[in-house]
Amino acid sequence: MLSRAVRIVEAFGPGDTALSITEIARRSGLHIATASRLVEELCGFGWLQRDEDRKVRIGVRMWEVASRASPTLSLREAAMPVMEDLHAIVGQHTQLGVMEGDEVLFVERLTAPGAVINFTRIAGRQPLHASSSGLLLLAYAPPALQERMIASPLEAYTEKTIVSSSQLRSALAEVRRQGYAFLAGHIHSAATGIAVPVRDPAGKVIAALAVIVPNDGAARSRIPVLQGASAAVSRAMAYPAPPPSRPTEPSILNH
Amino acid sequence: MLSRAVRIVEAFGPGDTALSITEIARRSGLHIATASRLVEELCGFGWLQRDEDRKVRIGVRMWEVASRASPTLSLREAAMPVMEDLHAIVGQHTQLGVMEGDEVLFVERLTAPGAVINFTRIAGRQPLHASSSGLLLLAYAPPALQERMIASPLEAYTEKTIVSSSQLRSALAEVRRQGYAFLAGHIHSAATGIAVPVRDPAGKVIAALAVIVPNDGAARSRIPVLQGASAAVSRAMAYPAPPPSRPTEPSILNH
Repeated sequence: MLSRAVRIVEAFGPGDTALSITEIARRSGLHIATASRLVEELCGFGWLQRDEDRKVRIGVRMWEVASRASPTLSLREAAMPVMEDLHAIVGQHTQLGVMEGDEVLFVERLTAPGAVINFTRIAGRQPLHASSSGLLLLAYAPPALQERMIASPLEAYTEKTIVSSSQLRSALAEVRRQGYAFLAGHIHSAATGIAVPVRDPAGKVIAALAVIVPNDGAARSRIPVLQGASAAVSRAMAYPAPPPSRPTEPSILNH
Repeated sequence: MLSRAVRIVEAFGPGDTALSITEIARRSGLHIATASRLVEELCGFGWLQRDEDRKVRIGVRMWEVASRASPTLSLREAAMPVMEDLHAIVGQHTQLGVMEGDEVLFVERLTAPGAVINFTRIAGRQPLHASSSGLLLLAYAPPALQERMIASPLEAYTEKTIVSSSQLRSALAEVRRQGYAFLAGHIHSAATGIAVPVRDPAGKVIAALAVIVPNDGAARSRIPVLQGASAAVSRAMAYPAPPPSRPTEPSILNH
């Protein structure tokens, strides 16, 4: 019962804002009657909702609960002010990614109008071997995961994408030696991704902070400001800013 | 069974990043054994997760599904570039709220380091009568909801908070006449909230765009730039930017 409800919600993929019951039933492998009954029940809890033309959407209530108790909230809150500064300076896409399964999951993104092409979305994923954030996270991941990726088939997105085991092994070593990942044209020929590590107070790499800039001669000049920004995020994680002074009026933080 | 699982996830309130099984059982009104079993099952789906000290958190998987299929995604994507510009110009907190139940739910927020005090969080809520975003949304809400709020007891946060029915009724009329809500010191004496409507292509008010600025003589001068920004968001909702030109390489949008 619970697993069926999970399958219904997980029928929503990236970019699917609304699905028909038929499509939900097909994707979740459930009978239409079962899917329909569970959708109604989930709508009753506000976890799903119906729009005007009877299509089903994720409910605002589910978004609210998942967002406010998000496991990455403290990371995102430490990173956002720094990302805003970085975004203002570099004027290009700025994003924050974490390892999730065998991919990088993007938990924050600031986009720049007119900036270079970038396929990242908030809560979107990219492969570890092809994106700068992914390669950075893989370089600091447990050796067993690195070896598994090195032994896997690697999909090519451009002629620059790393597709061989030996290339990936030496790219990971280079990331660790340099302290950053610099991938020019690996996902799209016009874009360069640059990613640096964000560390928790114990020094463990927990996230990748990245900018996506045009694939041109100026890209490398972005590395120092990005390194400064990631150091600021790591420091903010270790020494969180004190909460704002409380008002004499009752706080409404918990409303 | 499904309702029990929903109660377990909804045990997480604003600011609760980790809860013990005992606390989850208490808040959800379930026996510890039942709560424990359901938590294990939800952990198996990645919807909850255990941290090092056995406390329970919302799982990254649930955040991912809820975020990427978020019902407010198109609104947030239209608003974010404009909010970033506004934030850079005004240099204070900038936030986007929607009506949810009898409160305003904030779906995006950009904070400014050193800016005036503000209790809003992403996925946080504020009461309709006391916040500028809430008053703005209530002013354009169905009359039945307005009358219900006017007839309700109204909590005071400062001596400026609207607490009487007649004050609320005239404040709502003033918002509709002016086209914005301007509340100086209603939640905290040091802060002024200014909110303007974001409209869907049919002209319906679907969100409030707001800035929180110091409660001083310069606050009113912020109104025009905020109105310009909300007009830009409304226009972006009506005429979304064309998708970026697709690469010749395979798209990784759906990874």
